[in-house]
Amino acid sequence: MKVDVALLPINLEQVDITDKICIILDVFRATTSIVTAMSNGCKNIFPVSSLDIAKALGKQISPVLFAGERQSVKIAGFDFGNSPLEFTPEAVRDKSIIMTTSNGTIAIEATKTAKTSLIGSFINAKAVCQQAVSWRKDIIIVCAGTDRQFSLEDAVCAGALVDNLSDTHMRSDSAIAAYLMYKSASENLKEFVSQSKNGKRLLELGYLDDLNYCLQKDLCDVVPVYRAGKISIF
Amino acid sequence: MKVDVALLPINLEQVDITDKICIILDVFRATTSIVTAMSNGCKNIFPVSSLDIAKALGKQISPVLFAGERQSVKIAGFDFGNSPLEFTPEAVRDKSIIMTTSNGTIAIEATKTAKTSLIGSFINAKAVCQQAVSWRKDIIIVCAGTDRQFSLEDAVCAGALVDNLSDTHMRSDSAIAAYLMYKSASENLKEFVSQSKNGKRLLELGYLDDLNYCLQKDLCDVVPVYRAGKISIF
Repeated sequence: MKVDVALLPINLEQVDITDKICIILDVFRATTSIVTAMSNGCKNIFPVSSLDIAKALGKQISPVLFAGERQSVKIAGFDFGNSPLEFTPEAVRDKSIIMTTSNGTIAIEATKTAKTSLIGSFINAKAVCQQAVSWRKDIIIVCAGTDRQFSLEDAVCAGALVDNLSDTHMRSDSAIAAYLMYKSASENLKEFVSQSKNGKRLLELGYLDDLNYCLQKDLCDVVPVYRAGKISIF
Repeated sequence: MKVDVALLPINLEQVDITDKICIILDVFRATTSIVTAMSNGCKNIFPVSSLDIAKALGKQISPVLFAGERQSVKIAGFDFGNSPLEFTPEAVRDKSIIMTTSNGTIAIEATKTAKTSLIGSFINAKAVCQQAVSWRKDIIIVCAGTDRQFSLEDAVCAGALVDNLSDTHMRSDSAIAAYLMYKSASENLKEFVSQSKNGKRLLELGYLDDLNYCLQKDLCDVVPVYRAGKISIF
């Protein structure tokens, strides 16, 4: 079995993923928020790529809450932005949420033809790998990136996942690369990630607590799965 | 000033490079061979993307030699393959060479609108950085990759260059990533690179000497420049 890392969703275009397990990462902050919400009792999350689709879908599902950001800022009129700290048990238990974010939800949709799509992050790194390994299939870790550009925190998190898969899965070049990044950065993760484009933007916007939260490893063992347009607990 | 790393030539499509310095890397083996040939007294190298263009150009330049490979194997009837060890002083002094390789020459051509395009490798890492810094411009390091896929050895070499530029140039996310890879891999460079797709292929084809040669740092101080379709010494 093999593990590969798509450093951007566009890299999936050349790959047949129909028999592979995809793990999607958008560390800052979409997939960390999704894992947090599902861990706190959220019923379903519907990830959609645009505001128009979110509004149209909102007319079909009731009751439903809305979550989303553009340029890291909450969309006006929405119930949640994209901070994982907003998705508390009180706010999300048994709720359905429609979510649209700049990069994460687009990356999730890019895996819709995969055998299985799982939502990963630092906070459920070990759990998502254990679940993925159980199917004994090739795995592709999909980094969301930022505005179609490589983003450091997603690649480093991919390296943490590759590290967890080292006993079972042979590594592609990009998987070795992500692993090397993670090994170099792991002791000073916050320092390196604070130099990244997204890290700097979060700090400028006052989201230091979000940054610290998103970089914690193995905080929970929930594994959200994306199936037929909907995220639920596996 | 900034340093960015294009992990594949396709990443240049979204960037205006007209005022930037590009450094092209195809460690295994095109750019290492070019640096070696120029260091050994070669007059000019004409990198072209296809066999047909190589043949057509060959009718306009005389005398001229031909170099190139497909799938790491020398093209039938050519004077050289793509092994840097073939480009000895005796073989290349004062000669003009038309070269076509699977990935390197395509990456070089992708930088033709850059302010300046330099040919880099591990063997001239320090020299190419010193030359690039002298112009006080933004720098983009362009990894050739393999068959449009990420390749480990180019990204790790990019990290070695980023390390050399740390006093003068701010790092993008991909530049930080390449630096982290290099820092992790540098002490066991051969071990990690031997696990890469290209590394494995070279070893299978019996090119251990090439692999060892290509991974040596700062072996020479020549800086080949690509201008108007032609590589010469700066």
